[in-house]
Amino acid sequence: MGKMNQSLIPFLEPKRIAIIGVSKTPDRPSYTIIRNLKDSGFGGEIYPVNPGGGEILGLKIYKNIQNLPDHIDLAVSMISAEETLELLKSCAAKGIRNVILTSSGFSDRGPRGVKGQTEVVKFAKENGMRLMGPNAVGPVNTSNKLVLPFYPIDSVKKGGVAFIAQSGQFCCPVMEFANSYLHLGVSKSIDVGNCCDLDESEVLEYLEEDRETKVIAIYMESIRAGRRFFNVARRVSKKKPIVVFKSGKTEYGLKAAASHTGAMAVDDKIFDAALRQAGVIRAQDLDEFLDLAKIFYYDPIPRGNRVAVVTYSGGVGSIVADACEEFGLKLTELLKEMKRKIKSALPPFTRISNPLDCFSAGIPTNVFNAYEVPLIAFMEARNIDLVLACFMVNRIWTVDAHRLLSELKPLLIKKPIAAWVMGDYDRMKEYTEILERGGIPVFGSPERAVRALGALWKYHKLSKKAPCIPFS
Amino acid sequence: MGKMNQSLIPFLEPKRIAIIGVSKTPDRPSYTIIRNLKDSGFGGEIYPVNPGGGEILGLKIYKNIQNLPDHIDLAVSMISAEETLELLKSCAAKGIRNVILTSSGFSDRGPRGVKGQTEVVKFAKENGMRLMGPNAVGPVNTSNKLVLPFYPIDSVKKGGVAFIAQSGQFCCPVMEFANSYLHLGVSKSIDVGNCCDLDESEVLEYLEEDRETKVIAIYMESIRAGRRFFNVARRVSKKKPIVVFKSGKTEYGLKAAASHTGAMAVDDKIFDAALRQAGVIRAQDLDEFLDLAKIFYYDPIPRGNRVAVVTYSGGVGSIVADACEEFGLKLTELLKEMKRKIKSALPPFTRISNPLDCFSAGIPTNVFNAYEVPLIAFMEARNIDLVLACFMVNRIWTVDAHRLLSELKPLLIKKPIAAWVMGDYDRMKEYTEILERGGIPVFGSPERAVRALGALWKYHKLSKKAPCIPFS
Repeated sequence: MGKMNQSLIPFLEPKRIAIIGVSKTPDRPSYTIIRNLKDSGFGGEIYPVNPGGGEILGLKIYKNIQNLPDHIDLAVSMISAEETLELLKSCAAKGIRNVILTSSGFSDRGPRGVKGQTEVVKFAKENGMRLMGPNAVGPVNTSNKLVLPFYPIDSVKKGGVAFIAQSGQFCCPVMEFANSYLHLGVSKSIDVGNCCDLDESEVLEYLEEDRETKVIAIYMESIRAGRRFFNVARRVSKKKPIVVFKSGKTEYGLKAAASHTGAMAVDDKIFDAALRQAGVIRAQDLDEFLDLAKIFYYDPIPRGNRVAVVTYSGGVGSIVADACEEFGLKLTELLKEMKRKIKSALPPFTRISNPLDCFSAGIPTNVFNAYEVPLIAFMEARNIDLVLACFMVNRIWTVDAHRLLSELKPLLIKKPIAAWVMGDYDRMKEYTEILERGGIPVFGSPERAVRALGALWKYHKLSKKAPCIPFS
Repeated sequence: MGKMNQSLIPFLEPKRIAIIGVSKTPDRPSYTIIRNLKDSGFGGEIYPVNPGGGEILGLKIYKNIQNLPDHIDLAVSMISAEETLELLKSCAAKGIRNVILTSSGFSDRGPRGVKGQTEVVKFAKENGMRLMGPNAVGPVNTSNKLVLPFYPIDSVKKGGVAFIAQSGQFCCPVMEFANSYLHLGVSKSIDVGNCCDLDESEVLEYLEEDRETKVIAIYMESIRAGRRFFNVARRVSKKKPIVVFKSGKTEYGLKAAASHTGAMAVDDKIFDAALRQAGVIRAQDLDEFLDLAKIFYYDPIPRGNRVAVVTYSGGVGSIVADACEEFGLKLTELLKEMKRKIKSALPPFTRISNPLDCFSAGIPTNVFNAYEVPLIAFMEARNIDLVLACFMVNRIWTVDAHRLLSELKPLLIKKPIAAWVMGDYDRMKEYTEILERGGIPVFGSPERAVRALGALWKYHKLSKKAPCIPFS
């Protein structure tokens, strides 16, 4: 417990990397790895290998593995399934103990592929080697600027979310989306592919101690060594929230997953119960997966499930109220004193209730004042555990987000808050960016905001951990 | 059958409008109506009324209703609940028979408000007047550039979606969002508010014959005159898809709705069954509400539920497959001939299945060719009813959407297709715009795309099954 899994270190913190099977043709996958490493400013040594020799992006290409310098931490294999065993033999001879296998054609490709994978794993075990993959794109580590995917990536924002996936083509575009649209920063992105050796459990153990990682978001299609995974997850989830999104829930999904990574059937109800027992939050779809990564990254964990809502529309209040019931949050009765306080700040005809519809209050004063008093009061109140703010943006009636944030800032570490913004898209986008830079996460719909807040409460219950602030 | 409801005509196609209770202060709600009408280029006459007189945005302000010219089609009342009865008396005296009541403070405001509303309705009935509202923002009609909301609206794109809501603050920002983000055009936007007189049934009858309206999307909190509504809906839904999103499903939601528009409890299961019988598609959340408006606007109705999927990732294929099972679509077995055709166009190692993962095929050729052959084949195949395309966008491996669209264009009217795009947000946005301008609707997640396609199939089943009730 509490000791970082050492096996992952050469894969995520290598100093000297060999890229085996590089192409000099721009935009080919193997070329793309070198370009990614160059563009990101990775500080370690990079050794491309190809029998043709020559040069790539200013780096000498070694003709074979034998000729490489010593003390290579990590090799990335870009060669075919058929040639992989030979490659491992050369690596073993050279003392290279850690290899990422990118090629498909293993357990994802029927009985023959399974046989090939078994041989490769057997050789690696016998020779003390560790493998990541096969059928994997390489990992990303934003703290040392390691960008090993053969997928073209322009830049990765540093932050607290670690993505783990059994699918590199899932992981990479999602990471770019999370960066650019969700304003989420990434600590690590790790594709375990067919998971022939290194698996999610070991990755979890590594991330358990990784200071950069605040939330762990796992996309999986199947589970191997389930008992071990749930044991590790149970321990890690007490320190950091783990969100799991699993496909292959249905017959169709399983069939598709089987042909993708050779996934095996798992009874979804048992899987679900095991996750709950391990304190892991399950996302039901891709939106929820990303929403939960976001809210756990931004918000502290609440003490209870009493929520208060400020909105610009009675209709939205009613939609939000339905969602609160669906996602396990309780719309608090506002205390008399609180009601008086809000009432005194708003026009006399305003109906003070929860959800609080500020629209009609906003018109005669200005919308900002209508939001300011109740939002601050809700964030400060002892009988409210979570807060939701629904904003509209238009030409004239928009809450001054900068001013609001300056008031709310000191309260954000104490109590979770989520927001939703509606209106013309360019204004929404600008407004969202202001809120998120200020520390308030924004979600794509009122229901999704409530669902995300509900997950914070679920995590509190599952992890049975009381502290208000999960990270320091 | 086929006779447009005449009652709505003065509300949506007025020639001479009085705005009663205008303010000369910019950005006040009543000022905003005048500005909206001016900005939109509305061609009718506008007559502002305020005891103070003077001028607003170049228009003469009449001091009272009595002094107005004759033949006013429609009055928009911006005055308080308390003064409304007096206003109706003046309108009646002047021969103004159609009034929009914007003020809240009626059935939304407890027993006293209900009493006031009853008096107002009684007077209107006795004097042959029709009322829209109260607690409503005015309607939008893009065909005559009528923009009556007191909500600041910059511009509304013309198109085939009619929004009906019992909440103006719901309707207006949603319309701006639909315009700017979903690339949806609007035909009409009609807020019936507390629905004291004109209701959804009459609006439906009007929209039934409205040539501009292709899809009707209704947000409601409660249902009045349920039997009549379902009878009308059953008839209209055979001509045009109707999507309903109702809040107040849960105890919390109902409580919130009651304080908003005075909504009454409805057993949600009975409501649900009645909608199904009437051939109406129900959306469960705001995302689905907008997604369904979009897909019915873009796509034809399929003959069956057999879907084929092209994707950039095996992981996404597996997520999509789960969603197909959840939302009632059947992943077709590809016919031998089809498999051969696709196989011959793609690299030999490509696994030809449905969902079809084109990623590995895309790298050695180029991603565009990998998508082109299967997508066209799927759109042409007789044993496939719906098609889903999952695209990724990045620096180098992006499908040429313009070329693809030029190939697909003639097929789009025959078979529904939906798309999802993943990657860096700016690229996604650009790509989405190209696809949607070309006629392929794009959705926010793979599951949402499948859910939307599933709704097309559901509509086919419901509208066929809906018993034919003779028009009375």
